[in-house]
Amino acid sequence: MKVRLRVLPLDRELSFKAGANLREALLESGIALDSPCGGQGTCLKCKVQLSGITQRFTPLEREKLSAEELDGGWHLACQVTVEEAGEVRLPELEVSRAKAGFGLLGEEIPLQPNVRRRHFELSCPTIQDQRADWDRLAEHLEPLEPGPLRAGLSLLREISHRLREWNFAGEVILVGDEVVALDPPGSARDMLGVALDIGTTTLAAGLVDLDTGKVVALDAELNPQFVFGADVISRIMYTQDGPGKRENLQKELLKGINQLLGRLCRSAGRERERIFEVTVVGNTTMLHSLLGLDAGHIALAPYVGGINRALSIPAAELGMQIHPRGRIYVLPSIASFVGADTVAVILATRLHQTDVPRLAIDIGTNGEVMLATKEGVLTASTAAGPAFEGGRIKYGMRAIKGAISSFQAMPSVEYKVIGGAAARGICGSGLIDLVAELFRAGVLDRKGRMLLPSEIDSSLAERIRVRGEEREFVISKDEGKEVTLTQQDVRELQLAKGAIRAGIELLMKEAKIGPDDIQEVLLAGVFGNYINREKAVTLGLIPPFPLEKVHFIGNGAMDGALRALINLEERRQADQIAALAHHIELSGRPDFEETFLRCLALGN
Amino acid sequence: MKVRLRVLPLDRELSFKAGANLREALLESGIALDSPCGGQGTCLKCKVQLSGITQRFTPLEREKLSAEELDGGWHLACQVTVEEAGEVRLPELEVSRAKAGFGLLGEEIPLQPNVRRRHFELSCPTIQDQRADWDRLAEHLEPLEPGPLRAGLSLLREISHRLREWNFAGEVILVGDEVVALDPPGSARDMLGVALDIGTTTLAAGLVDLDTGKVVALDAELNPQFVFGADVISRIMYTQDGPGKRENLQKELLKGINQLLGRLCRSAGRERERIFEVTVVGNTTMLHSLLGLDAGHIALAPYVGGINRALSIPAAELGMQIHPRGRIYVLPSIASFVGADTVAVILATRLHQTDVPRLAIDIGTNGEVMLATKEGVLTASTAAGPAFEGGRIKYGMRAIKGAISSFQAMPSVEYKVIGGAAARGICGSGLIDLVAELFRAGVLDRKGRMLLPSEIDSSLAERIRVRGEEREFVISKDEGKEVTLTQQDVRELQLAKGAIRAGIELLMKEAKIGPDDIQEVLLAGVFGNYINREKAVTLGLIPPFPLEKVHFIGNGAMDGALRALINLEERRQADQIAALAHHIELSGRPDFEETFLRCLALGN
Repeated sequence: MKVRLRVLPLDRELSFKAGANLREALLESGIALDSPCGGQGTCLKCKVQLSGITQRFTPLEREKLSAEELDGGWHLACQVTVEEAGEVRLPELEVSRAKAGFGLLGEEIPLQPNVRRRHFELSCPTIQDQRADWDRLAEHLEPLEPGPLRAGLSLLREISHRLREWNFAGEVILVGDEVVALDPPGSARDMLGVALDIGTTTLAAGLVDLDTGKVVALDAELNPQFVFGADVISRIMYTQDGPGKRENLQKELLKGINQLLGRLCRSAGRERERIFEVTVVGNTTMLHSLLGLDAGHIALAPYVGGINRALSIPAAELGMQIHPRGRIYVLPSIASFVGADTVAVILATRLHQTDVPRLAIDIGTNGEVMLATKEGVLTASTAAGPAFEGGRIKYGMRAIKGAISSFQAMPSVEYKVIGGAAARGICGSGLIDLVAELFRAGVLDRKGRMLLPSEIDSSLAERIRVRGEEREFVISKDEGKEVTLTQQDVRELQLAKGAIRAGIELLMKEAKIGPDDIQEVLLAGVFGNYINREKAVTLGLIPPFPLEKVHFIGNGAMDGALRALINLEERRQADQIAALAHHIELSGRPDFEETFLRCLALGN
Repeated sequence: MKVRLRVLPLDRELSFKAGANLREALLESGIALDSPCGGQGTCLKCKVQLSGITQRFTPLEREKLSAEELDGGWHLACQVTVEEAGEVRLPELEVSRAKAGFGLLGEEIPLQPNVRRRHFELSCPTIQDQRADWDRLAEHLEPLEPGPLRAGLSLLREISHRLREWNFAGEVILVGDEVVALDPPGSARDMLGVALDIGTTTLAAGLVDLDTGKVVALDAELNPQFVFGADVISRIMYTQDGPGKRENLQKELLKGINQLLGRLCRSAGRERERIFEVTVVGNTTMLHSLLGLDAGHIALAPYVGGINRALSIPAAELGMQIHPRGRIYVLPSIASFVGADTVAVILATRLHQTDVPRLAIDIGTNGEVMLATKEGVLTASTAAGPAFEGGRIKYGMRAIKGAISSFQAMPSVEYKVIGGAAARGICGSGLIDLVAELFRAGVLDRKGRMLLPSEIDSSLAERIRVRGEEREFVISKDEGKEVTLTQQDVRELQLAKGAIRAGIELLMKEAKIGPDDIQEVLLAGVFGNYINREKAVTLGLIPPFPLEKVHFIGNGAMDGALRALINLEERRQADQIAALAHHIELSGRPDFEETFLRCLALGN
């Protein structure tokens, strides 16, 4: 039996199977509600307002939703079973994409891409020179190439017609050793490439004109897989759920990538069919998901993926909508939890060529730590979790309009909201500020415990609300909407912070150096541009480095992907980085647990 | 409007569009009547018997069919327009495949194929050794390989599961630098390859066990494209007729190939999914057709194809039904009318390594002539036409049961029929015998004119029948069925013979040698095993070589394809042959026409 629901504010009439889960049913209709918990009823993000439907609240909804929300008919879509016709109102649609802060190190990268344009003027066939069309073209081009050239059937199917149409002159586009496109003489059509960073939460891409090496557009998009779980482990668990799930995830990801590519091209006024190569970085789970590979063993000890080597495949094989003969180049990974994104950060920061100790930390949904010395690069991955991107935090959100991005507690409470709007939630940098400041102000103790109002000797006491076992700090009530930081939020941040700090400590131990030996600390990641270095030290996220040693590099992974797109030598270096980096599996160390527990504490 | 016809002896009720051409309509229903003229009403092969239908005879039918046939309701399907329901009786279905006479030179070819089996026992992953599954396998295999190995996405999608299922031991099959299959340890499943010769008329294939290098099955099949025209030019013309025609031809060819592969495997008791590579030879038009490439310019001066170089492509891209990751290797061609089949003959006969002058002639639907000296190999193609395969000959047929395969005129008329059956027609070797013997006996003069009974002083005179301008020689009346040789048949043979002989003469002229310098003459081709050498000399098809110098090598092209399948070095030699052979375009020579006209004459 089918049930018809009108979906507002989209004003679409959709028909669902009776008995279906509302969140899943909406998802199947292409409406992806933000639900980082993957529908487990814990993230409280998939709220919808029902009307004309007598839907009972589940015990979980009664517990989690405010009285006001319950009165207004708000439900958690993941808890709703579709049973009768009516109206579903979605929350004001979030801008689903946080513009990534691209680093673009500024350094000029020599233009030596895998995609090249070559002009040709061939002699016309005669009865004395009967060489076949492809042979004639290849023999003309090959003297300047390192080896023989290839052509696929689809190009061979058009070559005879094209050469005659253009009187045996024109242009070719080469990708590696393959001729992928034939253009008329003097057409000077675009020759584009894309660098793509597939984050667990965010897809970021840069469109490059490969005739000039210039980035002509940058954009980012929420990874649509977000609704299947906020972190890589949830996504992997989802794929193990039954047949077709892996393909589902892959399809969603590709849909998101194709949308992003379309937007990039529109904003730059270019044609997507003129993109000939996409260099891809990302964590290994995302790369496996892109390729449709089984990532199941990444989640189980000893944490082994299907492939870490670099891989070049036809874009058409994945349905990535670029030139039909374009290619995808996936950069190599180091280990199951140290992916091509980390290789790209190392490539972009030249950590692999360093003479003095340098530390880099890439904080996304996972946190990767890299420590370079002249002996080589050590890497570790830490299960930072999605806290910094708003996951599992009551009012957590990405760094978009309405997010509290910085905070001070003393002498008075002050905060900044992105876009100058009313505060709606807290993003990663805001969370760090909050916990660091409340710790400094004595609202949180070293163990992260939120003190009772009676224990605090300042005006901050009145902002602490205690409800049974639960405690929360009220940050704002802009336009009547409350934003708070709960004790549980502090615990989530501690787990993330502890994981990253333990990674730093153990890599320093492995390299037998201390914080003072480190000459430079690089913070990468989507929210790297916003974080307050001083607060990060106060919090204990990083050791007490002198602030002048700490630099932000934005999305270093994107920089690395751009390098690999623009210069082939960079691609070879990426292979070397992946082969030579020494990965430390933290969970395999006897000293891990003790270090982690110690690092949970706030402060330095 | 639809018209229903019952098709006998198949006993199938088919529905056709009113107004459709019967031959084409049957073809669309999968019933391919033998029609080498492509439906032009000249080959008289597509005879069908209609009943319950008042179909008028066309003027062409009245002219071409015998009174007996007209009385019996026989029509040419190509002349019939489907208009009303009734019955169509097809002629007794021919055995559509003439078993090819494979040469299989006997020489042992060293086993060094592109397809290889490798066993592996990997160390299992541990927390200290977290290499990804593919990386682990590739690193194990690569030390014995010339370069890095590749794997496609579909293999990568199964590798993690397989390795764990088999506890990290097993076997791989490699094709070139790609791992295409994973097998359980000790499974010793077949590793097969196929050598395929795509003739204009006949598809021939050999199935090889690549673990031993032995041919385990051989078979042949009529090229299903035959119904679209008997020679390459008719087929090319068909493809230029409108959109989709090229794809039609390709589809028919692939259907035939897939049937042939299936039969090969059944007869050898092997699985087709264990075929990992198919080496393909054929004339360039057939190879273009296989690949779906435009062969239009092959038919027009200056006769240039799309590609002559060797080409390796995934079998799946063409829909060739072997292992899903198997590959097709198309051998290189020399020129538009000197294809990979000729390269394969040169490879098989070692012409390219000769110290003394040697001549080879490959007679199929086209005739290719090769003359090797220590200076190199000269090649020429001659428009022999389909006469030797029964095309354009009134009672012409392939060398199957019922075909007159040899003939003598003196002292009395005697002939042999394949299978000892009643004579139904004449195959290529019979045709050569007939014309040679009738020339020797004075029934034909040097110019090929059939004398009038009154001009002949022997009992042969009574076998000559004159009807207006038409003359024919009655060979047999077995079981009341007459088989004759017409004046027109003699002309067709003269054209074929003249073309081949002119090719031989002009190559000798180019090499500045005479017939006496030639140390060996090799006759290749499907009917090479049946031809009478002495009669070929009497006829003047070849110069008056001492018979002991003339050898038959059967299907030399198949031998070459087998060599390329079994040994990679042979593949490299094929590339060299194609690059170094000097092709003489006969039509481009000022002395061609005079030589051709001179060679039309019978005798030596």
